[in-house]
Amino acid sequence: MLRLRCLLLTSCNPLPFNRQFLHSPIVSCSSSVRSKMQSINYTTGSSTKLLFRQLFEKESSTYTYLLADASHPDKPALLVDPVDRTVDRDLSLVNDLGLKLVYAINTHVHADHVTGSGLIKTKVPGVKSIISKASKASADILVEAGDKIQFGDLYLEVRATPGHTVGCVTYVTGDGPDQPQPRMAFTGDALLIRGCGRTDFQGGSSEQLYESVHSQIFTLPKDTFIYPAHDYKGFTVSTVGEEMLYNPRLTKDEETFKSIMENLKLSYPKMIDVAVPANMVCGLQDLESKAA
Amino acid sequence: MLRLRCLLLTSCNPLPFNRQFLHSPIVSCSSSVRSKMQSINYTTGSSTKLLFRQLFEKESSTYTYLLADASHPDKPALLVDPVDRTVDRDLSLVNDLGLKLVYAINTHVHADHVTGSGLIKTKVPGVKSIISKASKASADILVEAGDKIQFGDLYLEVRATPGHTVGCVTYVTGDGPDQPQPRMAFTGDALLIRGCGRTDFQGGSSEQLYESVHSQIFTLPKDTFIYPAHDYKGFTVSTVGEEMLYNPRLTKDEETFKSIMENLKLSYPKMIDVAVPANMVCGLQDLESKAA
Repeated sequence: MLRLRCLLLTSCNPLPFNRQFLHSPIVSCSSSVRSKMQSINYTTGSSTKLLFRQLFEKESSTYTYLLADASHPDKPALLVDPVDRTVDRDLSLVNDLGLKLVYAINTHVHADHVTGSGLIKTKVPGVKSIISKASKASADILVEAGDKIQFGDLYLEVRATPGHTVGCVTYVTGDGPDQPQPRMAFTGDALLIRGCGRTDFQGGSSEQLYESVHSQIFTLPKDTFIYPAHDYKGFTVSTVGEEMLYNPRLTKDEETFKSIMENLKLSYPKMIDVAVPANMVCGLQDLESKAA
Repeated sequence: MLRLRCLLLTSCNPLPFNRQFLHSPIVSCSSSVRSKMQSINYTTGSSTKLLFRQLFEKESSTYTYLLADASHPDKPALLVDPVDRTVDRDLSLVNDLGLKLVYAINTHVHADHVTGSGLIKTKVPGVKSIISKASKASADILVEAGDKIQFGDLYLEVRATPGHTVGCVTYVTGDGPDQPQPRMAFTGDALLIRGCGRTDFQGGSSEQLYESVHSQIFTLPKDTFIYPAHDYKGFTVSTVGEEMLYNPRLTKDEETFKSIMENLKLSYPKMIDVAVPANMVCGLQDLESKAA
């Protein structure tokens, strides 16, 4: 089990980080609308409720996840792996649900689409972008294994799961009676449903990916939901227990896994030369070059 | 509130209907695999648990839903709106999860894809297809408003929601302490997320659709989840409360709604001449013509 420490107390944040912004209104929403909205899914043992939505971007088959503490008066929310093309859809939903968006988070530097984090920051002042320190990308907050990302009374735990890229992390909902049950793991490209991300670019390593999945994801409770960054066959969710039984790659021994990954014969990622440079700067490359 | 009557006691079933088949093993699965799988999502007030999966078919943007009573020893399951192209994926998942598929159900005669019901029946002997009597399509079991479709200790209630087609129904999870909370409504094309199905083919009527949604769906508890047959923008779920506030068509008065629907200027549905004749016979048109 990783050591948990509060994100707000870590020294990995390269920019001034104001404890108060978490409670300032960012997305405006009338109280009458807010009071009509219901909290959704994943009740916890206490009165805390996670509002959860899975969103799909068809061109890159990317899943974006919206999570909010619906029991908190401010309904603080975060987006995991937003895509630039669907930012308006996502912010419209945030607004409809009466949420206050506080974080735009990436699991890694994506090679197949441009992150929506930078664009979101231009549209909703106060939102902070988050990515791993190991990714060497720019963001407002850089996280490491064991950090907690708090939103209201809920939090995500950061687990380092390198192998697809050197900076990949998995975000896992909190552990305890006040946190969602079952737990939920946002695995990025480290673990896909019945698959996993390729390991031949961006500091990828099949050996490291095997170790990451087995030590950081397969050690979670078996009923933990797996919510990946992509699915190409129309699956929306799996569980740790299911992938431990049926993942065609990660159920193999390490040598067989490495051999599978070395012989995938995949073509060069068509978006990589556009997406990676943009995603190293929060998806803001175009905006910055236009401003220059 | 509709009068509920047990499907097994109705006279609308045109074929012999054996009460026992519900408990016969159809999809084989070793008990060791079954015992390892976790039940998923939507715990109820009692020990009954709904296992639930949402599945996406990209070409027609269709959602297929898998529901099972995970607490029942046989784990009886049903599929809502299966697509012919993704039948193998769906059956593989049913098998992995150790479920016994008993029903393949359609919300209506689809015009944009061929149903997987017929193909499923050829691959999993014993599965019964279900559609509404009002659709005038063939199926093993024809349902009407108020019928219950029982699977283990859980059930779906049938609500008549014509307007997109004359035979459209919405399936709603049961009401009571042993049924999933919040309730879930599988609305087909009657109510989409921030939209609704067109009303200019297959006995469609904008007046009827308006009445259907307002009397049969918007009267459900506001936290009821809306699971539509399609989404074209990457949304996966909404709620009754959310659509009552933000659906751009169905929040309008009836005359405005009718005017919107009459002026959509949509092109002729490209699959309709293939899909509708096939779906009138459970998607088995090709198989039947080949056998002739």
